[in-house]
Amino acid sequence: MTYDLEKMRKDAIKIFHRGLEAVEPAAAVKRNCRLTDGMLRIGKSTFDLSKIDNIYVVGTGKASAPMAAAIEDILGERIAKGIVNVKYGHVAQLKTVKLIEAGHPIPDENGQAGAQSILNLVNDAGKNDLVVCLISGGGSALLPLPFQGLTLKDKQDTTDVLLACGATIHEINAIRKHLSAVKGGRLAKAAFPATIVSLMLSDVIGDNLDVIASGPTVPDSSTFKDCMNIFSKYSIINRLPRAVVDHIEAGISGTIPETPKPDDPVFEKTHNLVIGSNIDAIRAAKKEAEALGYRTLVLSSMIEGETREVALVHGALAREVLRTGNPLPAPACILSGGETTVTLKGDGLGGRNQEFALAAALDIAGHDRIVVLSGGTDGNDGPTDAAGAIADNNTLKRAEKMNLSPHMFLEKNDSYHFFEKLGDLFKTGPTNTNVMDLRIILVSKP
Amino acid sequence: MTYDLEKMRKDAIKIFHRGLEAVEPAAAVKRNCRLTDGMLRIGKSTFDLSKIDNIYVVGTGKASAPMAAAIEDILGERIAKGIVNVKYGHVAQLKTVKLIEAGHPIPDENGQAGAQSILNLVNDAGKNDLVVCLISGGGSALLPLPFQGLTLKDKQDTTDVLLACGATIHEINAIRKHLSAVKGGRLAKAAFPATIVSLMLSDVIGDNLDVIASGPTVPDSSTFKDCMNIFSKYSIINRLPRAVVDHIEAGISGTIPETPKPDDPVFEKTHNLVIGSNIDAIRAAKKEAEALGYRTLVLSSMIEGETREVALVHGALAREVLRTGNPLPAPACILSGGETTVTLKGDGLGGRNQEFALAAALDIAGHDRIVVLSGGTDGNDGPTDAAGAIADNNTLKRAEKMNLSPHMFLEKNDSYHFFEKLGDLFKTGPTNTNVMDLRIILVSKP
Repeated sequence: MTYDLEKMRKDAIKIFHRGLEAVEPAAAVKRNCRLTDGMLRIGKSTFDLSKIDNIYVVGTGKASAPMAAAIEDILGERIAKGIVNVKYGHVAQLKTVKLIEAGHPIPDENGQAGAQSILNLVNDAGKNDLVVCLISGGGSALLPLPFQGLTLKDKQDTTDVLLACGATIHEINAIRKHLSAVKGGRLAKAAFPATIVSLMLSDVIGDNLDVIASGPTVPDSSTFKDCMNIFSKYSIINRLPRAVVDHIEAGISGTIPETPKPDDPVFEKTHNLVIGSNIDAIRAAKKEAEALGYRTLVLSSMIEGETREVALVHGALAREVLRTGNPLPAPACILSGGETTVTLKGDGLGGRNQEFALAAALDIAGHDRIVVLSGGTDGNDGPTDAAGAIADNNTLKRAEKMNLSPHMFLEKNDSYHFFEKLGDLFKTGPTNTNVMDLRIILVSKP
Repeated sequence: MTYDLEKMRKDAIKIFHRGLEAVEPAAAVKRNCRLTDGMLRIGKSTFDLSKIDNIYVVGTGKASAPMAAAIEDILGERIAKGIVNVKYGHVAQLKTVKLIEAGHPIPDENGQAGAQSILNLVNDAGKNDLVVCLISGGGSALLPLPFQGLTLKDKQDTTDVLLACGATIHEINAIRKHLSAVKGGRLAKAAFPATIVSLMLSDVIGDNLDVIASGPTVPDSSTFKDCMNIFSKYSIINRLPRAVVDHIEAGISGTIPETPKPDDPVFEKTHNLVIGSNIDAIRAAKKEAEALGYRTLVLSSMIEGETREVALVHGALAREVLRTGNPLPAPACILSGGETTVTLKGDGLGGRNQEFALAAALDIAGHDRIVVLSGGTDGNDGPTDAAGAIADNNTLKRAEKMNLSPHMFLEKNDSYHFFEKLGDLFKTGPTNTNVMDLRIILVSKP
């Protein structure tokens, strides 16, 4: 049985890497963009390059440098100019496109200067120009451009007040978009009448376009009036920067234009396309699992919730496979994605994926033939150098022999040190992509 | 769309009731016991009644009265005598079998007197006698018989100390069995050399025989030595009743016999059979769902965890059905069972099933075509008169119109009053059975 577990652990790693390949930024760009005989096909749209004067490349996000490199590979010298904001160190060798390294998760002046350059660039684009916009996770913080009259600090202070008063992420996003000169579709608006194609690598649950990097090229259905209603709802007007309240009031009175709405003509010339997301990684992982002989079930790419509780549910599925062959008979692979949360109680080291694996290890202990791998597709689980961890039904036995108490490590949120001692951390190194997490549960035949 | 939701809600209720029917105690007994031409078939075993001198019926549990009625229907006057412990008021019309009404969840003197009568009855059974034992949920508290030299209070005090020190349920069970004269296989041991057939309605996760009613007819793999190790592990010896520590020490020294182990000859004459459990209810529910035209997936009958987090996972599956047709395409029915927990924060009224429906309602709001029903198979969710509640993607909209804040009700653990106001409580009345909870998620086609 030991040998089987070893094979299953290797299978789980293979399945994870196959998922990862599918969302590698350059590969995702190349899968969705093809240039043949002067015709550029992006998704379902086709552009005759002979009718396009200039191609500009802009973008923002942690994975946007390799996306830019892929676009350069495809379009070569047809690119007239390009500016892309990336996180410090997240660079690539580029020919035409200029990378601006900027602050993340805290926006900084570099990011703002880059955002201004990007806005200027697309502003200059004409009717026969094509703007290719490359968006990936982190793209919101990396493209900070407060609306005229506001400062980065105004925006940050507003966010702090909103978080403190318990506003929902939906409400916070509505306000963020209305304080920005580029978010909430304003970048697309600026590029008009040029054609804009936005390629997005999604790091958000459900791949909602207007949420990815706060939707610079996506219609915004929220209004200045909504923003004021949110301020009233939480009674926070007096706690907000004066400039912010003035700005929202100016928007309501019509002095400042609204973010573009879905019926804005700009979106007739805007093409938004998700080129890589959690469900893509899961689908590729499924193919690999099936090739390895596992019946495979995709649960959901949208799993959220408290990590250890979510792990219990996954454990219950694995144990049911053993007991009754539900939800599918062994050899079975159950895949899920999304991003869970960890409510910190201890001061240990770990991340949601490692904590998932630890809670799952406790749940499947004493059973048979189960392997669990949970990993972040960015290769970076919490503040650790691991992507996640691998557990199986023998993990607890091995821990016991080493006098490690899994309960104690879980209580302390110290999953990293638990799996480090067992040699069961799952490390990929930085992957340059991010479509949230991937969880793989394998249950073999007896 | 409103009409579809109405139909889906009715479908969900039909599916639940079909699941319930499968675990109705009398029906479950009759499905598993048949008398034809003097041959009694119970599960896979057959007993030639012409070779059996006396048939005795014993039992314990909240559903054991209707089980006894079913056995009387089958065996009629062949039953020589019978004694079954039930909860106050959980009775049925019986001819031969005597019901002893007793305390639950706190054991009382009635229960102890009944347990002693049951022990005496099976003690008198001879080699050619058959003891039919009817076990259902609550059977542990309803059959309290402290080992000679111990009192009910000793047992209760011990349990209190164990709960306070953080002992696992597995550890608590090991000690309970060793303090009892009937649990942990001792009832079967007392019946030896009679043949014993134990019919069990399972209310525990995974249907572990030795856990259902603390396994009066099931081998116990734990030992007196294990019990002492648990006392040492938590350093509680000084906090336990002296009689309990003396008893365990006497067991270790061999003065008191061990609980019977799996290789004990008594188990060659013991037949344990689960006649109804959560997975049986789920399987029947699946048939009904399929008959109603839904593709149906059984997730697991062993779902545990914090209710609202478990609800998020179920919601994520429903939303993925809408988005990508995973884990299965609409029209889809997703079934799960088990028993979740609620960490109380507020002082509202509700139960885990109603809280599940409320958390799910929040998760699926703004989506389409989803109905969620969660109900306890005993018809009794928490301290309420409802079995559970029904939610759909319109629940929040309807609540908004009535100025109800679902978040507030959830914070206060007040799901009962939320669904009461909406008219969406799911009430079955007492069902006389209990195989934990059943959750039904329906997603229809557009």
